[in-house]
Amino acid sequence: MNDARTTVDELKKLMDDFVVARDWRQFHDPKNLSASIAIEAAELMEHFQWVHSDAVLTVRDDAAQMAEIREEVADILAYLLSFATAMRIDLADALRAKMLKNEAKYPVDRFYGTFKPRM
Amino acid sequence: MNDARTTVDELKKLMDDFVVARDWRQFHDPKNLSASIAIEAAELMEHFQWVHSDAVLTVRDDAAQMAEIREEVADILAYLLSFATAMRIDLADALRAKMLKNEAKYPVDRFYGTFKPRM
Amino acid sequence: MNDARTTVDELKKLMDDFVVARDWRQFHDPKNLSASIAIEAAELMEHFQWVHSDAVLTVRDDAAQMAEIREEVADILAYLLSFATAMRIDLADALRAKMLKNEAKYPVDRFYGTFKPRM
Amino acid sequence: MNDARTTVDELKKLMDDFVVARDWRQFHDPKNLSASIAIEAAELMEHFQWVHSDAVLTVRDDAAQMAEIREEVADILAYLLSFATAMRIDLADALRAKMLKNEAKYPVDRFYGTFKPRM
Repeated sequence: MNDARTTVDELKKLMDDFVVARDWRQFHDPKNLSASIAIEAAELMEHFQWVHSDAVLTVRDDAAQMAEIREEVADILAYLLSFATAMRIDLADALRAKMLKNEAKYPVDRFYGTFKPRM
Repeated sequence: MNDARTTVDELKKLMDDFVVARDWRQFHDPKNLSASIAIEAAELMEHFQWVHSDAVLTVRDDAAQMAEIREEVADILAYLLSFATAMRIDLADALRAKMLKNEAKYPVDRFYGTFKPRM
Repeated sequence: MNDARTTVDELKKLMDDFVVARDWRQFHDPKNLSASIAIEAAELMEHFQWVHSDAVLTVRDDAAQMAEIREEVADILAYLLSFATAMRIDLADALRAKMLKNEAKYPVDRFYGTFKPRM
Repeated sequence: MNDARTTVDELKKLMDDFVVARDWRQFHDPKNLSASIAIEAAELMEHFQWVHSDAVLTVRDDAAQMAEIREEVADILAYLLSFATAMRIDLADALRAKMLKNEAKYPVDRFYGTFKPRM
């Protein structure tokens, strides 16, 4: 199982099987899950809390920290998948639709290398 | 494109093509991206900010709100994919590894229907 | 020292003395501090992550949990004070100005007992 | 009213009067308020989302942005005060207790200019 051959549905199922086996869907309502995503996102941020922008990629060379970061990323993804299941959201569709909007909002010629549009 | 047939790598590529086309990788460092995930997670939470636990699934019946929620979910996913690309994290591997840990930490017989383990 | 007789400036000074004594102002830039507030806010949320709305006030009866909650609240306040110092913001003025705006935005007769305005 | 002469209780009262006048205490439970603090903290972070560490203090020279930042700070403070009221927490006491712990945890001689303790 890895990103090249794993579909989103396979990841959703992995997560939902875990939740259903424990009868935890009762806790996994969208209010709690949105808070859970935010909580795990904050734990991920903690790894960069005091790191200067220039030093931020050096974190990749720290194997112990990368192991923790990988877990935080997995936690965010787990709750995001669970949220999508609870709310019946197709993630691939949602991302594609949003990126089309972003393409229109940020045309390459005006936003190349900048967030502030060229005139 | 939808969850049943879309791989994680296809989503990663969709996002990375967008970023590279605008020369935005310079902004998409892991410190900024972890903050971005948290910012979008907070926007998702906002939809449930004052909703009582009992009423939380009624949000699914509100088409306008669901459209906004789908966009927030896409934003979280977009930054999570971008973070994984920047940090060279295989999301499927990371999730699988974390769920194996969770299986060991929360055995079904002790955690069925509860977060507080049975004796 | 307690809320009835402590001014905001006394709290700001308590925090800033701690930071300056350790030469930590170099880390306490507004970017890092805004992330720090969010990180501590997430740790506070964690205490209510899976609690149903109806049960949420029972947390007050749990002395051990209240001790932890008091620490999270202190952490949020500490970083908020440090942020205000770094950005030269008078908190009392800022709150007063914002509440005047809120008074105008949410007139009592239209918002009594509801977030959705009466006609 | 400003930080030099305003006590925490005066700020708590300013906020609570607003809430009580609208009969909003029913919504201001600690679960919702902790999420609200996190939501406002994320809005504050947004002002620094893509700003490089080196450029972060230039934000102080942008009057329009500072006006927005002052409002975000006020929102965080408002919900923090409301949370403290709902949970009967004395903020000055909580901060003082936490800073005593921090003094013990981070002795000046070992942590001067660094988060990683000297040997």
